[in-house]
Amino acid sequence: MADDDDILRVNAAYYRAFATADFTAMSRIWAKEQVSCIHPGWPVLIGRDAVLDSWKGILGNPGSEEIEFHEATAIVDGDEGRVLCLEVIGPAVFAASNWFRRIDGQWRMIHHQAGPVALTPDRGEDEERPQRLN
Amino acid sequence: MADDDDILRVNAAYYRAFATADFTAMSRIWAKEQVSCIHPGWPVLIGRDAVLDSWKGILGNPGSEEIEFHEATAIVDGDEGRVLCLEVIGPAVFAASNWFRRIDGQWRMIHHQAGPVALTPDRGEDEERPQRLN
Repeated sequence: MADDDDILRVNAAYYRAFATADFTAMSRIWAKEQVSCIHPGWPVLIGRDAVLDSWKGILGNPGSEEIEFHEATAIVDGDEGRVLCLEVIGPAVFAASNWFRRIDGQWRMIHHQAGPVALTPDRGEDEERPQRLN
Repeated sequence: MADDDDILRVNAAYYRAFATADFTAMSRIWAKEQVSCIHPGWPVLIGRDAVLDSWKGILGNPGSEEIEFHEATAIVDGDEGRVLCLEVIGPAVFAASNWFRRIDGQWRMIHHQAGPVALTPDRGEDEERPQRLN
């Protein structure tokens, strides 16, 4: 489960960079190649330049809402892994998939997608209890 | 680019199964292990049983809307790959990431997430991107 712990730590670092509007940390978390991102409501972004440009805009105009994540579940296969979680940003809840690749011993983000959820996390927890698969 | 062609073919088969409400084809496309899915508005689904149950419900109540996909782009790394595309379902547009793993020589779906896009594909270049929080 060491891989799970490692990837969950990087996932937490991603949300810390987001919550503190730390663009330097955010750009370090993302891999150099084969990256893509779909922010809520946005079209598909492909390539490190497009993805980091989007983060520069988002982190340059931080909202006043708290940003939290909950119910993180890791699924790891070799040097590829994902973390599935719920994001809570003020009153809004998003379901997110965060994909990482281990490059030179370090997990780097290669894809992020988040979209609005119709349920609150509390109600979601009652209905779908995340489970570990590996 | 042969890998790209192969994964794009399986991505097309996924949308064909969806559009024709073919549950048998859909269940064959999904891998047996380490699968997850986030339908628009839904919480995170983890595990083949939860994912196929959701598809049984969706395909068992097909809408009258046409289902199409556009602008598919493949990113492949060894035996892992994703296809990013736009889904058009009636008047609604979704941005989707479809993740596949090559198992015994065959690409199988391991993750799908789709979420609503604020722009239509055609108008995407003309209008400013929505500034959403993440």
